[in-house]
Amino acid sequence: MKELHEAIRKYGRGLGTDVVKVDMFLNHRIDTELLCKMGKAFAEEFRNEKPTLVMTVEASGIALAVAAAMELGNLPVVFAKKSENKVQTGDVATAPVYSFTHKKEYNIRVEKRYVPRGSRVLIIDDFLADGKAVEGMTQLCQQLDSEVVGIGIAVEKGFQPGGQQLRARGIHLKSLAIVTGIENGKIQLQDD
Amino acid sequence: MKELHEAIRKYGRGLGTDVVKVDMFLNHRIDTELLCKMGKAFAEEFRNEKPTLVMTVEASGIALAVAAAMELGNLPVVFAKKSENKVQTGDVATAPVYSFTHKKEYNIRVEKRYVPRGSRVLIIDDFLADGKAVEGMTQLCQQLDSEVVGIGIAVEKGFQPGGQQLRARGIHLKSLAIVTGIENGKIQLQDD
Repeated sequence: MKELHEAIRKYGRGLGTDVVKVDMFLNHRIDTELLCKMGKAFAEEFRNEKPTLVMTVEASGIALAVAAAMELGNLPVVFAKKSENKVQTGDVATAPVYSFTHKKEYNIRVEKRYVPRGSRVLIIDDFLADGKAVEGMTQLCQQLDSEVVGIGIAVEKGFQPGGQQLRARGIHLKSLAIVTGIENGKIQLQDD
Repeated sequence: MKELHEAIRKYGRGLGTDVVKVDMFLNHRIDTELLCKMGKAFAEEFRNEKPTLVMTVEASGIALAVAAAMELGNLPVVFAKKSENKVQTGDVATAPVYSFTHKKEYNIRVEKRYVPRGSRVLIIDDFLADGKAVEGMTQLCQQLDSEVVGIGIAVEKGFQPGGQQLRARGIHLKSLAIVTGIENGKIQLQDD
């Protein structure tokens, strides 16, 4: 997606060989104009899959999920929670996720009542690297007797295996930008 | 706000004497149609304050902040982070916040570069109870040489002191719904 590529070229920073910093417009400061355009791009890509619900995981996926859901006719968004919430009640679906950023495993959880059986789920997230968060959300959807009809990602790290594995399984995956590598702090992008 | 009152009456649940559960439409599952209406209500309330930036704290404030920022002409959103992020770099403003829900103190942090000096900040959050999160964000704004021009809250717990204290200080505060108490699981709301 042209506008996201431009933002990554202008504001993105590469750290080491594998960290892509897009805090300036995506996951600390949010450029809401760009966010709306990303929401529109996801909606165009996945409208024909007829999603009934958008799922993401807190925190930085929420803005993107909301933007996509609004463009898809105000679908509900459900965001999986990361920490055990003391006031949580009701039946809960959980799945483990290993975070390479934080070097630890944590659980994500969704209250079952919020994802009706038979939901057609569009998963949205800001990053795709090893695919662990998406895998966790896919497991949640299985427990919830619901189908993942598409996966929309803002920034895929093409040099990590998550995207390839999902495409090999025939899943409808759309990444708005694919980073092919980082060289001397400069982020290399795959052409649209 | 009428639509929020209706949603609280229909889907909200009171636990004990002080927990207000609005997971069904606000902070686990998000009703994006209602979210847009809340964003519009915040924009109408605060447009004359000429905010240049919307600030919130992850995670459940993000959707509301984005909805308000879109309605205010695509303002940038900055969400304060709760956990120390290993890949964070640059100068950071931090403030302590005590969470009554989780019974512990944590730090919130914002990278200074994302809030330009002299910003006119609209703080948005899903809940206001004792006002600790808002107080923390206000401290961040002071460190960032920026002014809090308004505070927009979805659900204020009117039986806790945060709202009263802010109003006593002459701060422009708007809560779209004010819960006056919980009786036998039923949430009591202050009339609009």
